[in-house]
Amino acid sequence: MSGLLGSVEGPHDVKRLDVEELPRLAGEIRDLLVDVCARLGGHLGPNLGVVELTIAIHRVFDSPGDPVVWDTGHQAYVHKLLTGRAAGFDALKQEGGLSGYPSQAESEHDFIENSHASTALSYADGLAKAFKLRGERDRTVVAVIGDGALTGGMAWEALNNIAAVKDLPVVIVVNDNGRSYSPTIGGLASHLSKLRVTRRYEEVLEYVKEKIGNVPVLYDALHGFKKGVKDILAPQAMFEDLGLKYIGPIDGHDEQAMEAALRTARDFRGPVIVHALTQKGRGYTPAEEHDEDQFHSPGAFDRETGAEKPKGRIWTNVFSEELVRLGKEREDLVAITAAMLHPTGLAAFADAYPERIYDVGIAEQHALTSAAGLALGGMHPVVAVYATFLNRAFDQLLMDVALHRLPVTVVLDRAGVTGDDGASHNGMWDLSILQVVPGLRIAVPRDGERLTELLGEAVAVSDGPTVLRFPKGPVAEPIEAVGKLGDMDVLRAADPDVLLVGVGPMAQVCMDAAVLLDAQGISATVVDPRWVKPLDEALAGAAATHKLVVVVEDNGRVGGVGDAVARLLRDADIDVPVRTYGIPQHFLDHAKRAAILGRIGLTGQDLAREITEAVAKRSQPIESQTANS
Amino acid sequence: MSGLLGSVEGPHDVKRLDVEELPRLAGEIRDLLVDVCARLGGHLGPNLGVVELTIAIHRVFDSPGDPVVWDTGHQAYVHKLLTGRAAGFDALKQEGGLSGYPSQAESEHDFIENSHASTALSYADGLAKAFKLRGERDRTVVAVIGDGALTGGMAWEALNNIAAVKDLPVVIVVNDNGRSYSPTIGGLASHLSKLRVTRRYEEVLEYVKEKIGNVPVLYDALHGFKKGVKDILAPQAMFEDLGLKYIGPIDGHDEQAMEAALRTARDFRGPVIVHALTQKGRGYTPAEEHDEDQFHSPGAFDRETGAEKPKGRIWTNVFSEELVRLGKEREDLVAITAAMLHPTGLAAFADAYPERIYDVGIAEQHALTSAAGLALGGMHPVVAVYATFLNRAFDQLLMDVALHRLPVTVVLDRAGVTGDDGASHNGMWDLSILQVVPGLRIAVPRDGERLTELLGEAVAVSDGPTVLRFPKGPVAEPIEAVGKLGDMDVLRAADPDVLLVGVGPMAQVCMDAAVLLDAQGISATVVDPRWVKPLDEALAGAAATHKLVVVVEDNGRVGGVGDAVARLLRDADIDVPVRTYGIPQHFLDHAKRAAILGRIGLTGQDLAREITEAVAKRSQPIESQTANS
Repeated sequence: MSGLLGSVEGPHDVKRLDVEELPRLAGEIRDLLVDVCARLGGHLGPNLGVVELTIAIHRVFDSPGDPVVWDTGHQAYVHKLLTGRAAGFDALKQEGGLSGYPSQAESEHDFIENSHASTALSYADGLAKAFKLRGERDRTVVAVIGDGALTGGMAWEALNNIAAVKDLPVVIVVNDNGRSYSPTIGGLASHLSKLRVTRRYEEVLEYVKEKIGNVPVLYDALHGFKKGVKDILAPQAMFEDLGLKYIGPIDGHDEQAMEAALRTARDFRGPVIVHALTQKGRGYTPAEEHDEDQFHSPGAFDRETGAEKPKGRIWTNVFSEELVRLGKEREDLVAITAAMLHPTGLAAFADAYPERIYDVGIAEQHALTSAAGLALGGMHPVVAVYATFLNRAFDQLLMDVALHRLPVTVVLDRAGVTGDDGASHNGMWDLSILQVVPGLRIAVPRDGERLTELLGEAVAVSDGPTVLRFPKGPVAEPIEAVGKLGDMDVLRAADPDVLLVGVGPMAQVCMDAAVLLDAQGISATVVDPRWVKPLDEALAGAAATHKLVVVVEDNGRVGGVGDAVARLLRDADIDVPVRTYGIPQHFLDHAKRAAILGRIGLTGQDLAREITEAVAKRSQPIESQTANS
Repeated sequence: MSGLLGSVEGPHDVKRLDVEELPRLAGEIRDLLVDVCARLGGHLGPNLGVVELTIAIHRVFDSPGDPVVWDTGHQAYVHKLLTGRAAGFDALKQEGGLSGYPSQAESEHDFIENSHASTALSYADGLAKAFKLRGERDRTVVAVIGDGALTGGMAWEALNNIAAVKDLPVVIVVNDNGRSYSPTIGGLASHLSKLRVTRRYEEVLEYVKEKIGNVPVLYDALHGFKKGVKDILAPQAMFEDLGLKYIGPIDGHDEQAMEAALRTARDFRGPVIVHALTQKGRGYTPAEEHDEDQFHSPGAFDRETGAEKPKGRIWTNVFSEELVRLGKEREDLVAITAAMLHPTGLAAFADAYPERIYDVGIAEQHALTSAAGLALGGMHPVVAVYATFLNRAFDQLLMDVALHRLPVTVVLDRAGVTGDDGASHNGMWDLSILQVVPGLRIAVPRDGERLTELLGEAVAVSDGPTVLRFPKGPVAEPIEAVGKLGDMDVLRAADPDVLLVGVGPMAQVCMDAAVLLDAQGISATVVDPRWVKPLDEALAGAAATHKLVVVVEDNGRVGGVGDAVARLLRDADIDVPVRTYGIPQHFLDHAKRAAILGRIGLTGQDLAREITEAVAKRSQPIESQTANS
């Protein structure tokens, strides 16, 4: 690593640079960001938007004494580069390389590893309260939150609490780029974006400078200085109603203006909002001009043209197209996204039926309960969300949707191992926690054709909620059924040694294992239950005619379909042994999906070996078995 | 039912009454509320506060064409009385009688049965959007939400969305009594309560009337009429920043003023806030003067004096006292409540250590993540919450606390069957969904002594989160251990027929069953695991020496400790049959805890009978077993 960035080993080096050198540092950072993301993919757009803002933070505050918490963590690349991790940045998100999110293991400057949105203000509240109790009064907590994340209810809860403690030194930097994943929506957003709607970005900043000057002003609740000006310009009234001080708006790309604002905020020794206007994708023309999401999180792309490498057909495409088709037949279908119109594949539905799409902001809780309301009102909502983010709305699915037996279909993309994005993005929880929801039905397609078929079945259910879940990445090759067993697909019928139950795409893994088992003289039946909740009663009958039942799922192995199958057999008084395979119940490090599946043994080979051993063990006399365990 | 109330069979009858008769109707309602709640307990305080407000709603709107949704449902007693259910009100919350919450089965006027807070605005958003799509343009949705519930993040998410649709006819009645369970806290609350702090309630209302008059005014976003006046009086700026229209503040006990405000709001045909100032406990002196919570939800009490019938020692008391004791030894212990300082037993801790208690509002999500921040900052937070409400913060416990291996102790009161309060209040989910949380440890005390002991062990854990759960009601009689098996308590050692695993208070049920089984010639060992996650490995060894393992828990039987024990044995290759007993996995109707436990078979007698049958069945030849199932 050469250049200025090569000389930055930590925040102290950022502070040491001359003001004149900072634009060059920013340039080097942008260059590296574009270079690495073009090769490996990554959250380019958000990070291009926070270059100056991050430099300013590390020049004004003393991390880690002053913790800097990022909401969400994907905007922390620049922070990583300024805290001694520039050298490792070229292996971003690669197995063994830097995480795409803050990581406590990587650096003492990283506090929060989770990257679900709208959490940073709550962490900041807790950290600042701890410091206060411990008498560490010189520490300031800095939280950086996007305007998108402010649409999440947690952020509101935190603001309400932070504002109540007048001497809590929390500096909240609102990184306002008018977009989170997609353009931020809702009443808040339309207020925040008034500036942009009425004037061009540069003109607005001109105007702000002219009226307020470059000296940041700390506004007071009811009797703020220059109140007239900020009434026109700033959304501060909302914050001030909460009793929060407000500084802004500041040009987030004017590093010196940001430093001045942050110094004023730091010296106040109480909760302050610093409102920075930034531009997503700043400094890289293809990103700045990218209408959909300013390169929010592209895969690998051509640096010169910005053209993304073709991805091939993914599960999301199949869902997207089928929903558009269903929307034509079914005028009662409406779709809901939590600020992820494009990533969830709902953009096509939005284009086709603009009056039947709702983007609720980063607000999964509201998404589910608003869906409950829509269903109460006679519609059939389809809520499309990444699997891991549904955890945020578990209570709403249970109490607001299921308790009322409402026909809401939740479509979970990125279910199972996702890989690159690390622990907080793996969709390994849904098949477990959703088991407890009374009346909920869950379908897991093994391939694109089944996705099409099961989506149709799901939206046809009118007396309760349904969930459909599929993984990230290329859609699986079709496996045709050779027969039916109740409502289940039989993919391979065999003599009754082992019954393999393959959940969704794990059906292929079971098929692979079955071939290998054959070579060992073990015959294996393979079934795909299609609907895993409730399980088909026929499964109990099938199990009773085999010597061993094996369940394989791309979900945490605690509480998932494996446990459900075992319970089904127990309740039917069938004592055939069951073995269950899934994701080990701990947080996974980032790596490619295929690499992780290999590492955790969810492959045909691993499975065949395990089953062969289990069968061999069961052929031993009972006494020796017990002694072994 | 005599009097005016006796003549009210539905909202049309409320509309037909002369204005002069309304105070008498209000009086009759208050009389009945106090009478029934004195006998049976119930949410008296909140309902005394909404008498006039509810009458006004049913005179202005046409329920059920105009749905009225209540946040939370416990303030819907008056609504029940005005929608044809006065006659059945004397069996409130009794088995087979009226539910304490809205119920679709009871009336077409009830839409929402769930009663977790802050949801109504999201339902209203969905309902109104459905009506709009279906062309039912004359329908208005009315949502009544307390100032307390506005501190919940979902309400913010919903406001943000409702405000974005200018022609969505949603009337949001803010029932502002300055208190939810306890005094509402936070920045919002301190703003809302400025009125009360500076002037006495009556004086404020005088002043409002004098300045604004009795004609309600619909204020516009930036150029509102009488802006000067409302800047002083009302918290409207926050709502207006969102683009919401605002009417208020209105005296919520002036029925005619409420009607006028609601008519103006109804005729606007867009989202409007109507801000009503009400008094919790209004009209019943012991409630009005009750400092703690204005009779929020008392048990049976003496109508004349307001004195509650003594309750005896409950689980909450044991927790409350022990936490105070631990707080003296451990200066790093801090406690967090989500607006339930008294019900969770934290009030004593707050009195003893006022600087170490945080009431975050009805904001469970923030409670957990702020706790994560406190733990990151070196403290050990204890978050006390009702078990069912933890569902709201599942994602935060998983991703914010557990992912970072932070020492946060979550104390779940009202775990298991709670009974009276119906489906949404039973704590039957936690032992299932928490199983998936990596590194989380869960303790379940069987009696008060074990609660004391396990709380101490929980707050001594420094490398990850802990959960402690106990039920509602009188603390269980102590059962002394007769031995240890690993970390588990052996309560009864016997010859190896059946191993009974009693989770927490179900240990007593297992002891009862063991005695009955003895009489059948079946010997039963009883163990209490104390910590149910992770399970003690010694349990597998113990299981291997018995012919049948039975797990009993006061939790949904899907995914709970029973499934965990079965998995432990499978993973250890121990094929001893396991049978699991818990709450059937559906939403329970309201009744007393003991009645429900009897109904669902969680008694020693039922258990003994089931086990006797299971043992008998296992003595038959294999062929006949399979044929039976």
